[in-house]
Amino acid sequence: MDAAVCFSGGKDSTLAALLLEPFYDVTLVCATAGLADSAVHAREAAEAVDLPFERVGLEERIVREAAERVVADGFPRNGIQAIHEHALEEVAALGYDTVADGTRRDDRVPTIPRAFAQSLEDRHGIDYLSPLTGFGRGAVDRLVETHLDVESGPSETVPKADYETEIRAVIAEEYGQATVEECFPEHVQTRVRGRQ
Amino acid sequence: MDAAVCFSGGKDSTLAALLLEPFYDVTLVCATAGLADSAVHAREAAEAVDLPFERVGLEERIVREAAERVVADGFPRNGIQAIHEHALEEVAALGYDTVADGTRRDDRVPTIPRAFAQSLEDRHGIDYLSPLTGFGRGAVDRLVETHLDVESGPSETVPKADYETEIRAVIAEEYGQATVEECFPEHVQTRVRGRQ
Repeated sequence: MDAAVCFSGGKDSTLAALLLEPFYDVTLVCATAGLADSAVHAREAAEAVDLPFERVGLEERIVREAAERVVADGFPRNGIQAIHEHALEEVAALGYDTVADGTRRDDRVPTIPRAFAQSLEDRHGIDYLSPLTGFGRGAVDRLVETHLDVESGPSETVPKADYETEIRAVIAEEYGQATVEECFPEHVQTRVRGRQ
Repeated sequence: MDAAVCFSGGKDSTLAALLLEPFYDVTLVCATAGLADSAVHAREAAEAVDLPFERVGLEERIVREAAERVVADGFPRNGIQAIHEHALEEVAALGYDTVADGTRRDDRVPTIPRAFAQSLEDRHGIDYLSPLTGFGRGAVDRLVETHLDVESGPSETVPKADYETEIRAVIAEEYGQATVEECFPEHVQTRVRGRQ
């Protein structure tokens, strides 16, 4: 069986791929509208862990609507959730048997309710997996430490391929950098540099 | 890191162990009050998949109270949930770094809410994992078919080590076999005979 893992180059989506690797032919798939250098950074991270990589296009409209939502809300949660749901639909349409992501038990966003998961499975004839849903923060941190070489730093300095990167780029272009700072709380991002 | 996987000899707990095996030193742990031959059947299944096995005792009172609850309810859900929560506490006290079970995304029972998981982790200083929470029924079935050799049949004919077996034994003894039939809907049980 093959599996497409929605991939940002960060530790969660990479760890999800590693958990599936003994059981599935894994391809790392980066969904991006091309509004930042996401695909480049994701491809580098995929090469660093020696797994096949594919890029799938997201409509630019999806990211721009999510950016508007983030500015209106003043926080990123709903905008990121909306992009992730669109990304899952695009990846599910690629023809893989299985679609997976790096959603964790203790994540606040994105979260995939069971009803959404089952609907995605039924409509696309796939299995949807979220291998980290059964792992808490501590277990994820310990597995990452043991199995991955990870670079971490503030969001704006770690080149990554997550939805936040594209939303930040759109907001910076349309509203200025100050609005980016207002909407995104400062937090540490990670980028995978290889396996341990 | 070592991990104790709550083990019934059935396909779900075995598959959970297989998913963790590349990352943890896995021991299969059967929690039983000794009211049926559970430990014997669980040990056989553990040997069949070539993983270490340990038995941990459950207080007989726990199973008897669960049996009373099942008879009062007329269905097994709450009784099984109560035993599983007690079993997790016992296994968490054994000293392993990690405690896991075979709870699945589409299970109605047992279900471990995130708050219970975090409380278990904090009180015992462990990680709690439910690797199948991120897998739907279809994905579990496909993985089992590919990786395990499984015997299946009606609950009363497949020798197994799950909580249902002990509850059925108590109810049969105290209320008679007719009450067992009334409380437990007929469903197919599985027992693992080996790996594929």
